[in-house]
Amino acid sequence: MKIILLNLNSASEDWSQKAVAFYEKKLSHFIDFSVISLKSENLNRQQKELRLKKEEEKIFNYLKADDYLVLFDEKGKNLTSLQLSKELNQILISGKKRIVFLIGGAFGVSDEVKKKAAFKISLSNLTFNHLIAEIVALEQIYRGFAILKNLPYHNE
Amino acid sequence: MKIILLNLNSASEDWSQKAVAFYEKKLSHFIDFSVISLKSENLNRQQKELRLKKEEEKIFNYLKADDYLVLFDEKGKNLTSLQLSKELNQILISGKKRIVFLIGGAFGVSDEVKKKAAFKISLSNLTFNHLIAEIVALEQIYRGFAILKNLPYHNE
Repeated sequence: MKIILLNLNSASEDWSQKAVAFYEKKLSHFIDFSVISLKSENLNRQQKELRLKKEEEKIFNYLKADDYLVLFDEKGKNLTSLQLSKELNQILISGKKRIVFLIGGAFGVSDEVKKKAAFKISLSNLTFNHLIAEIVALEQIYRGFAILKNLPYHNE
Repeated sequence: MKIILLNLNSASEDWSQKAVAFYEKKLSHFIDFSVISLKSENLNRQQKELRLKKEEEKIFNYLKADDYLVLFDEKGKNLTSLQLSKELNQILISGKKRIVFLIGGAFGVSDEVKKKAAFKISLSNLTFNHLIAEIVALEQIYRGFAILKNLPYHNE
């Protein structure tokens, strides 16, 4: 089994790249894990639909038919970290070859991508930029594993 | 007026220090802003109450009587970024000399500190470690100002 954090981004910062590498390494101790960044489209709000369509193509181009897709979406469930770890456990025992966690672009993802998602999680009611969303998502996946493995990391 | 992000932390990472400096600089364009880190107590769950008491002393030692204290707390309000910017605006026009945003330690803060807080905000239902909480809080304060100043940063 392999877990992928897929995201659409444009520019990144030195610190965000380091943070991603930090959690990628930590997660690699638990499972075959990698972060894949697709280049987001440089189209503004006036061209939102076109942007979502182009980003959808990139996402579907990357995904395999039997991937288990988890979407981070503002309309998703507001889980606690403990609930997220339980969901993670359900997915891990499902026998899927690849779990893909997806963070959409600045305008989210198209309805078609949403339909393909097996599960939707909201990171917060607050809006995060893509660098922050990526780091938060990584730490939550790490925290989920730490809870499942009873590591002294999460305080309830 | 001055805004301070006060937090209790132990170890930090190179990337988190860089992320903090990045947002500290961006926020300094809007207002007199700084991040102040108090050293958290190295006491585990069995000594939770003692730890909260010692951390309370450090927090009260830092705070001035007329500070406006905003606490990031899991029991706080789950605001959207737009709502947070409105709260920020209310505080900015209140005429307070210092606004202190506080992120507690690994076990939160004591009841006395909670009582002192004028407002409580939850960053997410998910639990973040202190490095992540600090970066998320900084980006939200930055986003709040960006919204108030109509900068092309926040997409509703």
